[in-house]
Amino acid sequence: MKDSNTKISYAIIRRLPRYRRYLNELRKKGVSKVSSNELSDLIGYTASQIRQDLNTFGGFGQQGYGYSVDHLYKEINKILGLDREYKTVVVGIGNLGQAITNYTYYYKIGFNIVGLFDINPKVVGLSFNGVTVRDFSELEEYVRKEKIDIGIICVNRENAQEVADALVSGGVEGIWNFAPVDLEIPDSVVIENVHLSESLHTLTFLIHNKDQEQ
Amino acid sequence: MKDSNTKISYAIIRRLPRYRRYLNELRKKGVSKVSSNELSDLIGYTASQIRQDLNTFGGFGQQGYGYSVDHLYKEINKILGLDREYKTVVVGIGNLGQAITNYTYYYKIGFNIVGLFDINPKVVGLSFNGVTVRDFSELEEYVRKEKIDIGIICVNRENAQEVADALVSGGVEGIWNFAPVDLEIPDSVVIENVHLSESLHTLTFLIHNKDQEQ
Repeated sequence: MKDSNTKISYAIIRRLPRYRRYLNELRKKGVSKVSSNELSDLIGYTASQIRQDLNTFGGFGQQGYGYSVDHLYKEINKILGLDREYKTVVVGIGNLGQAITNYTYYYKIGFNIVGLFDINPKVVGLSFNGVTVRDFSELEEYVRKEKIDIGIICVNRENAQEVADALVSGGVEGIWNFAPVDLEIPDSVVIENVHLSESLHTLTFLIHNKDQEQ
Repeated sequence: MKDSNTKISYAIIRRLPRYRRYLNELRKKGVSKVSSNELSDLIGYTASQIRQDLNTFGGFGQQGYGYSVDHLYKEINKILGLDREYKTVVVGIGNLGQAITNYTYYYKIGFNIVGLFDINPKVVGLSFNGVTVRDFSELEEYVRKEKIDIGIICVNRENAQEVADALVSGGVEGIWNFAPVDLEIPDSVVIENVHLSESLHTLTFLIHNKDQEQ
């Protein structure tokens, strides 16, 4: 991936998890082969877009045969970095933090939530899925000692930068941020933001625009 | 907006809530004017991109003056459909549903959560922020009678389509979907999906790619 010719655009990265989700459904149904046209019907992208996307990664299809569902699924897993385990902590164990913890615990293979952290004394000491909530003051040291890969930020916007700083100092590789703020982190750490507000406002835009067209 | 020349691309829609967020922060700080270069420093898009985006909506800037923060903020609100109220229901009052309910209740002006629904008898009858959880069987009739605008789906993937069907039959304008599944809804209803899994996999891709570059 060092060659700039093979630099993968952000748009493709955004589509790959979606390919993965549909391929996984096909696998579960026992489907072994799929064409770009069939994928197009399922996913809604054009067949040409799909072929172009998958070619970016070296082209897993064979002319007149289509794609091997299992092979393509596994290759996409590799590309997405899902062929390894991630040690993960969640910071901020309110409703959202609990929801994300449960979600990851029950549905996500490869993401081990080994630490939960909060600043609220009423929450510190409680257990969720067998993991006890620790005090926020222990976060940085814990991340360093346990070699945590991913920190998930579920605190409010006022505290999010402080949490990010502790995660970065402790040495995480990536941050999954749910706080509605753009965090300042060094280039050595990657970040993915889930800005709920922006998603909700996209919805109202679509509603508003629809109303105007009627 | 009926003219196809002024048809707004999905990419711009995605950026507008972000402009709005930064403009709101400037307003709170008492800043009255801002140039595209200053916006660029804040938001990270190029100044040329910003001018192009804002021109799409008629150009709110004046040469040599920049943009009026308050005016631009209000205009973006109008474009995003945030100058009106939305009657909203949340379906699925687990941790995620509670988190979204609290988030909307405390932080979002214009979104009135008037109904909460669940299928679990242990949850039906509980109250959150003064709203009592009703049984899912009442959803469709409630949506119709109360003229609900937006339905928020926080149930699991297995039940999400059934919930969407009830919301659509009841007459919602839009759906904010947190279930990890692509829902089938008529074109007359708009949908915005928050696919947490795809966001998480984007993060692992970025981590994986970073590791390869090192």
